[in-house]
Amino acid sequence: MKKHIYIYSPSGAVRDKAAFKRGIKRLQQLGHDVEVDADALTSHMRFAGDDATRLQSIHRACASGADVALISRGGYGLTRLLADIKYKDVAKAVDRGTQFVGLSDFTAFQLAVLRKTDRITWAGPALCEGFGVGGPGNVEAPDDIMEDCFNDMLLGQGEGSGWRMNAVPNALLEKPDVLLSKNGQIWGGNLSIVVSLLGTPYFPMVKGGILFLEDVAEHPYRIERMLTQLLHAGVLAQQKAVVLGQFTDYTLTSHDRGFKLQSVIAWLQATLKVPVLTNLPFGHVPTKVLLPVGAKAELAVNGRDAMLVWGHVG
Amino acid sequence: MKKHIYIYSPSGAVRDKAAFKRGIKRLQQLGHDVEVDADALTSHMRFAGDDATRLQSIHRACASGADVALISRGGYGLTRLLADIKYKDVAKAVDRGTQFVGLSDFTAFQLAVLRKTDRITWAGPALCEGFGVGGPGNVEAPDDIMEDCFNDMLLGQGEGSGWRMNAVPNALLEKPDVLLSKNGQIWGGNLSIVVSLLGTPYFPMVKGGILFLEDVAEHPYRIERMLTQLLHAGVLAQQKAVVLGQFTDYTLTSHDRGFKLQSVIAWLQATLKVPVLTNLPFGHVPTKVLLPVGAKAELAVNGRDAMLVWGHVG
Repeated sequence: MKKHIYIYSPSGAVRDKAAFKRGIKRLQQLGHDVEVDADALTSHMRFAGDDATRLQSIHRACASGADVALISRGGYGLTRLLADIKYKDVAKAVDRGTQFVGLSDFTAFQLAVLRKTDRITWAGPALCEGFGVGGPGNVEAPDDIMEDCFNDMLLGQGEGSGWRMNAVPNALLEKPDVLLSKNGQIWGGNLSIVVSLLGTPYFPMVKGGILFLEDVAEHPYRIERMLTQLLHAGVLAQQKAVVLGQFTDYTLTSHDRGFKLQSVIAWLQATLKVPVLTNLPFGHVPTKVLLPVGAKAELAVNGRDAMLVWGHVG
Repeated sequence: MKKHIYIYSPSGAVRDKAAFKRGIKRLQQLGHDVEVDADALTSHMRFAGDDATRLQSIHRACASGADVALISRGGYGLTRLLADIKYKDVAKAVDRGTQFVGLSDFTAFQLAVLRKTDRITWAGPALCEGFGVGGPGNVEAPDDIMEDCFNDMLLGQGEGSGWRMNAVPNALLEKPDVLLSKNGQIWGGNLSIVVSLLGTPYFPMVKGGILFLEDVAEHPYRIERMLTQLLHAGVLAQQKAVVLGQFTDYTLTSHDRGFKLQSVIAWLQATLKVPVLTNLPFGHVPTKVLLPVGAKAELAVNGRDAMLVWGHVG
C-alpha cells in the first residue's frame, strides 16, 4: 500500500544529510510517496530554522493531507514553540487521518497535543535514525520490528505489543497473572521532556494511565531525580502502571560506587505501589515498537511477559 | 567572634577528604568552634550515607544549636529526602538562630523549607569548595568576597550586595535608574534543582519576588529548556526581577553553530517583560556573595549597576 509520508523538521537541524537521504530512499523503496518540507534541511544555529520557520513547517505538515507526518530527527527546539502551535490545526489533521510520528524532543509536541486536543499521535522512529540506516552509498534495511510496527500503524493492524520484562515487577510478585489496565490511556515518551512540561499548561492530566518513559545520555542519578519529581508531583501514583523503556548512552563514574540504573529501578519499585514494568522496547535504540500516545489500552502481565493492546479498547 | 559551626553531609559523599580537612582548618583559623556530624564522611554509593543516615544528619544539624549549619558539599541526594524532613524542627532551629548555609543540591532543602515554613536559609558556600581551598599540606585563604560575606552573615552586618551587570537589561533601557523591588522575596538557587521541584509540594509559591538562578555543567540548550519551563509555568512573569548568576563548566559543540549562553539570555530578555539581570556573583565559582533565601529585599538598578539590600526591609 502506497502512503503519503510528509517529512519535516520541528526540532534540531539535520546534520547527517546522508542519513536523511537514505531514510527517504528506504521509504520510497517500500513504495511510499515521500514529500519533503521546504525547510526540512534548513539550519539556524542548532535548530532546523528559527522558531517561525519550524512553526510553519509544523503547520505545513498539518495542512499536507499526508497519511504520516514523520519528523526528520529530534534534538531540541519544540518546547520553545508550544505556546504558538495551532493545536486546532493539529486536531483537524489527525481527524483527517494524518498520523504524527516521532520521539525524543517530539514528546513535547505529543503531550501538548494530548493536553490541548486529546488527539492520538505516535511514539515511534524519526526518519534519520529509524530509516536512514546504512553507510556511504548503501541503504540498509531498518530494524525489522520497528519497520513491522510502522507498517502495522499504516495499515491500522496489529494493534498491540508484547515484550519480556527484565524481571517480574516487585508489586506483582504475589499476583503474577494480572490485568493492570482495562482502558488506561497510553502516554509518556522521553523522560526529560515529560518532566520539562510539569507545572506548565502542556502537561497532560492523565489519571489511570499507562505511563511509558525512556531517555538517552542521562546519568541514572538524573533519571532518579526526574522520577522523584514525577513522584512528588503525584503523577506516578495516579497511573495504573509505569512502563520503563530503554535508558541508554550514559556513563557511570568512579563516584557512583555501585549506584546504577538498576539501583534507580529498585528504588522506584520499593517506593511506588503502582507496578513498575521494565524493558519496553522503546527509546533511542533501533529495535522499538510504535505506541499510540493518547490511545486507551489494556495492559496485562503474566510473569515476565507484558502485553499492551490498544485497538478497539474504549 | 567565635561561632559554632556544624558540618554535615545531606547530599553527595565527600571524596576529597583533604579539602574537607582544609575547610575545617580554615574555619578554625578564623576562630570558630567547628563540630563535625558523625556521618559527615559516611559513604553509601554516591551518597553521604543512605537516606535514613542523611536525614538523621539533617535533624542532628537542627538539634545542634549551632550558629551555622554548613553543608560539606552538594552533589545529589536531597530531593530523595524532601518528604521525610521534619520541617518543624528546621523552623525551630532557624528561630533559635541557626543559619543553614549551602548551594547546588542544597537548593532543594532551601526551597522546601521556604515553602513549608517560610523560614530564611542562606545560599552560600559549601565547606569543601568554599573553605577547603589549597593543595597538599597548605590551607589557602578562601576567596575574599565570599569570606567577607560569610563573616557579614555571622555578624548580621552588611546586609546587601552590589554588582556590575554585563549590560543594562533590555527591559530597562529607557529607565536606567529604577527601584525594581521594594520588598520582594529573594529566592532561587540552582536552576536544575529549582525546576526539579516544579509541580511538587516543595516548590515555593513566590509572587513579586527576586528569583536568582545559577547552574554548572548544563549546556545552554538545557538552561534554555529549564527557563522555558519556568516561563510556561508562569513563574517568571510573577517576579519583579530574574537575576542570573554564573553558569559555568559546559561545553559547546560544533552542532551549536553560534547558539550559546548569550543566545539564551537574549531570548529570555526578548520574551519576558520582567527585567532579566545578569552577572550576579553567585554560582559554582569561588567569588560569590551570600544570599538570604526567603528574605525580603530592595532591588535597585542604575545603568549596569545592581544593588540588592535586605536587612530591615519588610
